[in-house]
Amino acid sequence: MSARHEERAEAAVSQEALRMRPNPIRALSKLLASPEVISFAGGVPSPATFPNERLAEIAARLLRDEGARVLQYGTTRGVPDLATRVVERMRRRAVAWPDEANVLVTSGSQQALDLVARVLVDPGDVVFVELPSYVGGLASLYAAGAELVGVRLTDEGPDATQLEESVARARGEGRRVRAIYTIPTFQNPSGITASGASRERLLDVAARYDLTIIEDDPYGEVYFSDDARPPSPIAALSGAADRVVYLGSFSKILCPGLRVGWVAAREDLTRRFELAKEAADLCSSILDQSVVASALAEGLVDARLPEIRSFYAERCAAMLAALAAYAPDGVTWTRPTGGLFVWVDLPEHVDARECLDAAVAAGVAYVPGAPFFVDGSGRNSLRLAFSKEDPVRIATGIRTLMPIVAGRERT
Amino acid sequence: MSARHEERAEAAVSQEALRMRPNPIRALSKLLASPEVISFAGGVPSPATFPNERLAEIAARLLRDEGARVLQYGTTRGVPDLATRVVERMRRRAVAWPDEANVLVTSGSQQALDLVARVLVDPGDVVFVELPSYVGGLASLYAAGAELVGVRLTDEGPDATQLEESVARARGEGRRVRAIYTIPTFQNPSGITASGASRERLLDVAARYDLTIIEDDPYGEVYFSDDARPPSPIAALSGAADRVVYLGSFSKILCPGLRVGWVAAREDLTRRFELAKEAADLCSSILDQSVVASALAEGLVDARLPEIRSFYAERCAAMLAALAAYAPDGVTWTRPTGGLFVWVDLPEHVDARECLDAAVAAGVAYVPGAPFFVDGSGRNSLRLAFSKEDPVRIATGIRTLMPIVAGRERT
Repeated sequence: MSARHEERAEAAVSQEALRMRPNPIRALSKLLASPEVISFAGGVPSPATFPNERLAEIAARLLRDEGARVLQYGTTRGVPDLATRVVERMRRRAVAWPDEANVLVTSGSQQALDLVARVLVDPGDVVFVELPSYVGGLASLYAAGAELVGVRLTDEGPDATQLEESVARARGEGRRVRAIYTIPTFQNPSGITASGASRERLLDVAARYDLTIIEDDPYGEVYFSDDARPPSPIAALSGAADRVVYLGSFSKILCPGLRVGWVAAREDLTRRFELAKEAADLCSSILDQSVVASALAEGLVDARLPEIRSFYAERCAAMLAALAAYAPDGVTWTRPTGGLFVWVDLPEHVDARECLDAAVAAGVAYVPGAPFFVDGSGRNSLRLAFSKEDPVRIATGIRTLMPIVAGRERT
Repeated sequence: MSARHEERAEAAVSQEALRMRPNPIRALSKLLASPEVISFAGGVPSPATFPNERLAEIAARLLRDEGARVLQYGTTRGVPDLATRVVERMRRRAVAWPDEANVLVTSGSQQALDLVARVLVDPGDVVFVELPSYVGGLASLYAAGAELVGVRLTDEGPDATQLEESVARARGEGRRVRAIYTIPTFQNPSGITASGASRERLLDVAARYDLTIIEDDPYGEVYFSDDARPPSPIAALSGAADRVVYLGSFSKILCPGLRVGWVAAREDLTRRFELAKEAADLCSSILDQSVVASALAEGLVDARLPEIRSFYAERCAAMLAALAAYAPDGVTWTRPTGGLFVWVDLPEHVDARECLDAAVAAGVAYVPGAPFFVDGSGRNSLRLAFSKEDPVRIATGIRTLMPIVAGRERT
């Protein structure tokens, strides 16, 4: 394409389109798809946890017996039986306020993020995000025109004191502060879980400064043992019903290829999200929704949860043991009790992006930390997903990786 | 909700969210779901055309044999085999320029509309639309902030002379003119098909004024006989490759509950659409895409097309015959040769919205015409979908309906 054509092409797209940036994780995941590489990169659930056979039976039965419904357009709100089961599921986690009127089924929780961003954010509005945070969430907020301001994530959760200071500063600059986007449980990318006290403090700050809390909770049920049960969602706290927009997903407890997530919020907001979805895609796949609803009705999801928890617990334990065995001084990491991710901080002078080529050449892949930070920091950090590889390969991969990212040659 | 709470709720949503309007057709369709009513309202394909059994076999086989792929995340671009078959399909309709690099698979063509609107339109940009036009397309454009300007639709296609005048006027007002949204073949809602000459003239005007043509073509393969084959898409004309964004769908030739459509465009735009989709939902249902790809590979779609064409041809013929028999003087209608819709113009003084209650009370439903017009006109018109009812009920429904909407009592 000529330079002139390129310029015209650029001029033909909207300001919003120019704010859209490729998701660096997904770009990287494609690059690293080689089966020889031990991959800690793609943060996707293991296919070993998918109940292929049972879902095949359910899908075939639905298509045979209810084809006229399952193959037809459906309501934008979602398949009603699925919404009912979503409400039950939230109640079991102590989120008591939503009923069906508060729920919109979405095409994965990524669509929920997108709809929430479009409905809540005007260009220039400030949205606070954790340092680090999920790049897909950042992409949706960014595309809606949000000004993203980072809040430090401690081992206990986001730093509420810093949040308050940032709110005051943004208001002082005449900015409209709108929301905080948080993944309090087994966070992607850090693996950190916010404490109960941190959750209460965040809700308190949000209430005092009229911020909406966008609580993204795809991993909350993937805890490794009963002792590792996380605190209830922020949405379960007193006063949360008017303040929290809660996002859930079946991607990690059933499978992500069936694109089924949801958002639960105040009725007036839910109606707005529904309108946004109507323009976005009319309705989510009726087959996907119906298969998930049937899987829930048959108890398939609950029956498999213990196995899924053990599956990831075993892999996380292997990774933590390997890190303890092979990580040199100056390298620190998180100790998740659920989810799919461990976060590693490297010595200050190491650039994880620069180490990646050598790591891949040695047969190990990971995601460098910088793209998860909206403030330009995080170069000396990386994300390790323990979901894809088995324990033996995890140990091998960590043993190979550590010397490459330890930065010894420069100390 | 108190008035004060309502006000706060309103203040909490973005300007974009305030531009989102409920789709009047879908709102109405819900209202008219009663099985006793003869419905010409919902413009949805008939479940009688869905190959339930074959799709059940395909879905079960895919989930059993390829569960690790079909239940996992996929690329944003779409399942590769599906993109290849989409390219083949466009080539058979003389749209020769797209290859896989020009194709993005979407969650139905509604999502394609939404992504195209978000990428091409900045708030205040002028987009020209047909009078009448598809409300779902209008909703996506409106949500992206477009200023929608109507262009009269004649029996031959959109009025190019009026379009040129409107472009000049908008430019004179300092507006940026961006695109024209057109459904040239078996249009929803009018049933009109633009002539070959009209298509060429539209492309010529678009080229001279640097407008993008958004060509929405969900009905192009649903012609009633070989004699009724429509002209090739605008995208097939010489010079269209840089100018036309082409939207296709499997909703009417297979089923809409599997949410599978596509957009084909210049490579640079397709990459933008892909970025927008990544933030919107990461990827479309992998199961839906894979089922459609297999259905195409097995020849299921092509094998069923003759039956689908006869199905709708028979129903359209019944409706046109009933209109000829029962429509009073002053009522005129279109004579579609494909698609799902007939358009009816009533005497000037009749308001089709006001007649609807009486019609439903008498057991017949339709969609009033006004919501399809962006210029406030169309009150004395209505859309009839002949896709849902059988020929006998179509005749009964038209016989019942005509006296109600003829407006005789006021002449």
